[in-house]
Amino acid sequence: MPGMTPIKNIEWIGDAATGHLRLLEQTRLPNEITYTDCRTVQDVWDAIKRLAVRGAPAIGVAAGFGCVIGVQGSSDEHDAAAKLKATADHLATSRPTAVNLFWALERMQRVAPCDVEALLAEAFHIHEEDAAMCRQIGEHGLRLIESIASNPKSPTILTHCNAGALATGGIGTATAPMYVAHEKKIPIAVFADETRPLLQGSRLTAFELAAAGVDVTLICDDMAAQVMREGKIDMVITGADRIAANGDAANKIGTYNLAVLAKHHGIPFYVAAPSSTFDMQLADGDGIPIEQRAAEEITEGFGSRTAPQGVKTYSPAFDVTPHELITALITERGIIQPVNAETVAEMIGET
Amino acid sequence: MPGMTPIKNIEWIGDAATGHLRLLEQTRLPNEITYTDCRTVQDVWDAIKRLAVRGAPAIGVAAGFGCVIGVQGSSDEHDAAAKLKATADHLATSRPTAVNLFWALERMQRVAPCDVEALLAEAFHIHEEDAAMCRQIGEHGLRLIESIASNPKSPTILTHCNAGALATGGIGTATAPMYVAHEKKIPIAVFADETRPLLQGSRLTAFELAAAGVDVTLICDDMAAQVMREGKIDMVITGADRIAANGDAANKIGTYNLAVLAKHHGIPFYVAAPSSTFDMQLADGDGIPIEQRAAEEITEGFGSRTAPQGVKTYSPAFDVTPHELITALITERGIIQPVNAETVAEMIGET
Repeated sequence: MPGMTPIKNIEWIGDAATGHLRLLEQTRLPNEITYTDCRTVQDVWDAIKRLAVRGAPAIGVAAGFGCVIGVQGSSDEHDAAAKLKATADHLATSRPTAVNLFWALERMQRVAPCDVEALLAEAFHIHEEDAAMCRQIGEHGLRLIESIASNPKSPTILTHCNAGALATGGIGTATAPMYVAHEKKIPIAVFADETRPLLQGSRLTAFELAAAGVDVTLICDDMAAQVMREGKIDMVITGADRIAANGDAANKIGTYNLAVLAKHHGIPFYVAAPSSTFDMQLADGDGIPIEQRAAEEITEGFGSRTAPQGVKTYSPAFDVTPHELITALITERGIIQPVNAETVAEMIGET
Repeated sequence: MPGMTPIKNIEWIGDAATGHLRLLEQTRLPNEITYTDCRTVQDVWDAIKRLAVRGAPAIGVAAGFGCVIGVQGSSDEHDAAAKLKATADHLATSRPTAVNLFWALERMQRVAPCDVEALLAEAFHIHEEDAAMCRQIGEHGLRLIESIASNPKSPTILTHCNAGALATGGIGTATAPMYVAHEKKIPIAVFADETRPLLQGSRLTAFELAAAGVDVTLICDDMAAQVMREGKIDMVITGADRIAANGDAANKIGTYNLAVLAKHHGIPFYVAAPSSTFDMQLADGDGIPIEQRAAEEITEGFGSRTAPQGVKTYSPAFDVTPHELITALITERGIIQPVNAETVAEMIGET
């Protein structure tokens, strides 16, 4: 289907010993399609930090390739292991809320023998497995869409931020059910929150869905309640950056907002995420650290200053949606519903 | 108190026969303080339409002066009356949701004799009465702030859009209790939603409150739920553009969002507006027309394009908050609590 293959966002260029990581420069979308070549660990760290690559699964994939870069030029396996440890420790500091980052770094450190060839193979595995996981999330989520597709109108889905193809190694997490439904010619419609401050919904989600031919409508974040009140929304699907053992889900700021609104309007609220997003060591969402982001993202985010000089800001990067507000979690293993510590443990296991 | 006098936003320059209306160019705030001189009715229409002057009370005040401009140069009272009618009919089309606009235009049409001198006097009366109403709203709203001011921390108020001094002929409506509390040295703090798409909270509310020395913190609209969940908000106060006879209130898009969030978090939600904002002919909010605004405000509102070319948008300018979600209405006549058709009729009367 034309346009159904999402744009490539993460690519390894060259061989293991001398190759590098090429990332779609997501901070320039949707106006410019440019790429950032990462040839050092610091390049990868910077790309993660400044959101050139973003989305928990994509960060994990990029970090895997970052580990390969970190051990290039090692004299022997002992040297490589030391470099890998230093690389992983450094990359772990780039985005402290993204559990997939730690998961990928730990996985890379279990590779044996510790050399660039084996590490690159593992990084490719992480990438391919992520694509497969996205597909499975899409297939499971499709059932939720099909359950309302008998309505006369198109099932309409509201999403926030970008848990899309651009955020993963595949067809996304929150977007996966949308892409699978679209492939099957179920006439869905999507409303995308623009997602301040960084406008990932506007720059990325609207971009990638429209490019794939999905009917997408862009709204400002503060319009979601009114759109729900008008009866336009049948379900909400968002992604997650980290999910606690009881199902509390950390995701882009504004997700909790939608969960409260969905509850008020009697609309199901779904969170789509792979099992690697679960942090079973965390009993609940209270333990999830919330980054504060720079004031400039609010006051002069898009080329012009839109707030008075010196104004105080408060800018949590994430919020935590308590599991009581989540109708179901959509994972690659299946749908967790209702959402609580028991049902999460049953699907995800103890680790 | 230094800075306590808000910047002048509406001013008549010169005499009745040849003078003109000077408006603070609010579309340029907070970076530039410039003025727009309106010498024709079309200038006034444009200024209202493109939000150079905005806020229901300020629009009413500006429309009053617009009527004076419309009758300048009339040959006799009959000619003036015809010109006044044409002026009022035209200005009424500039912002169809703002009931103060119609109220001011009707009031100007009742002036006798119909000449520029009498009309200018009436326009000045509308302006002065608005300033007095703001002050009274502030005094009544102060009681609500004082009721929580015994807490050890500063009472903290969340507001949306700009129902501030810049939106009125005085100290604002939603901001009036804040300014009065600040005058009385009650240590309040304010969180201001930036208010997409036009960022009135960022450009205007944060600007005018900071200029007056009020402790103000700017957030993105999608952060309000998280800020409430963190226990940072003691009350919400917004303005209104039109209030139906049962208390349903139309205001800037995103207001209803806050009302739902406030209910979920057990936080009182107040709407501050003068009695002229009530439209007692409307039984409820279902009859309030909601403008759709231009896509470009969402897709390229910050000086650069932030959404893909050709993306569909949905952009209601207003939403309607049902009276059940409003803890109290703060008017210049007093506080309406609880909010329903009976209590509104008791305070506002039948017309």
